[in-house]
Amino acid sequence: MAATPTACLIVIGNEILSGRTQDANLAYVGRFLGELGIRLAEARVVPDEETAIVEAVNQCRVRHRYVFTTGGIGPTHDDITAASIAKAFGVPFGRNAEAERRLLAYYPPDKVTAARLKMADMPEGVELIDNPVSAAPGFVIGNVFVLPGVPRIMQAMLDGLKARLQGGPPIRSRSIVCFASEGEIADRLATIQEAHRAVDIGSYPFMRMGTPGTTIVFRSTETEAIDRAATAFLDAMRQAGVATSEELLV
Amino acid sequence: MAATPTACLIVIGNEILSGRTQDANLAYVGRFLGELGIRLAEARVVPDEETAIVEAVNQCRVRHRYVFTTGGIGPTHDDITAASIAKAFGVPFGRNAEAERRLLAYYPPDKVTAARLKMADMPEGVELIDNPVSAAPGFVIGNVFVLPGVPRIMQAMLDGLKARLQGGPPIRSRSIVCFASEGEIADRLATIQEAHRAVDIGSYPFMRMGTPGTTIVFRSTETEAIDRAATAFLDAMRQAGVATSEELLV
Repeated sequence: MAATPTACLIVIGNEILSGRTQDANLAYVGRFLGELGIRLAEARVVPDEETAIVEAVNQCRVRHRYVFTTGGIGPTHDDITAASIAKAFGVPFGRNAEAERRLLAYYPPDKVTAARLKMADMPEGVELIDNPVSAAPGFVIGNVFVLPGVPRIMQAMLDGLKARLQGGPPIRSRSIVCFASEGEIADRLATIQEAHRAVDIGSYPFMRMGTPGTTIVFRSTETEAIDRAATAFLDAMRQAGVATSEELLV
Repeated sequence: MAATPTACLIVIGNEILSGRTQDANLAYVGRFLGELGIRLAEARVVPDEETAIVEAVNQCRVRHRYVFTTGGIGPTHDDITAASIAKAFGVPFGRNAEAERRLLAYYPPDKVTAARLKMADMPEGVELIDNPVSAAPGFVIGNVFVLPGVPRIMQAMLDGLKARLQGGPPIRSRSIVCFASEGEIADRLATIQEAHRAVDIGSYPFMRMGTPGTTIVFRSTETEAIDRAATAFLDAMRQAGVATSEELLV
């Protein structure tokens, strides 16, 4: 999948690292990008600390076509993502007039607080990302897309970016469940991976009602290549007397 | 929390980045370490690619007291963590006699496959990590602890390491729910954070039955400092007419 552009996700927040909050954004962003033909090739989780955010953003933005950040753009004292990103890019940080206009239009006058307006403080020269849920916009600077951490809002904002992201051909996948443990099929599977280099074959063990099984996932931008590898695998399992089924995706 | 040692978690696996599998190890490891007085200060998710694993391990092991990896130590062709870690440390990679002995003792003779024995291939000179669930051991090399990705097995192995990990004082936390949105309490909260520097105060918005609220989390190694900050916060909310309650942890 050499022609597939890559992306990195930077999840920002002490609560993810402390284990207080289970991250739900990584899996969503990974699937979203895969459908657009962009491979999420790296993710990092960093605390609400300027040096950590600056370092992660600057290391990742030169290595990937796109960088996404989630978290730390709310109204409270621990929301330091926007200021940290201004520092990463070496640009001034201050009030964005259009973002402020959107916040003033959204909140009733008696609900406008200094803290809420802080959400309009951004690096200079950014492009806003629309927030159809709660007004406060994200922003794009260079190849870095800055999004909130609340999954429902993040997802709505990410969906709005679809037309703007340039992917390669969509990454397809096909999953086959087989009722044998990894260790029993691994040698045959390695031979099949060797013979089907255009397909990335993953092997994921599971245990169902005390019985071990393995899900094999075939991923590629080429549907035909996936089907050739899957057929080879199904043949090998048939010869080995191992039952298989296509995984039903829910 | 300057005296608290830090750790990094490296989650290894294409399936996490593609969004096929929801990671469950980060939150568990974060909580586990916090109880031992070790702060999970960074996490990375990397694909099953040698260069990515080598780079992450070598960047992180010089920065943290401990590095943990999860994933990629099973029997299949995509399990390349052990070999990659040998490369990161520049040591030979080959069969570990004691690990092989454990696998041979665990599997019935007709279930011993070349692929299963591959799980005994490790960097030279490692110390094994016991696996009370499925025999195949993890290993420690330098300050890097190499664990499997399956949560149930990873957790059992991590629990066995408790006595071996040197933490600082345990990191305590207290959570207070308040029935106002972040934007309405943020200014008061910033003042309290300013006055209580020994406490790390986090603010996490939620929506319950259409009503916005905020959970405030006070974290510190000093219980008294937490209580002072929490009391100041409760007083401020009382003055502002905002209802609060201690969060019931389940």
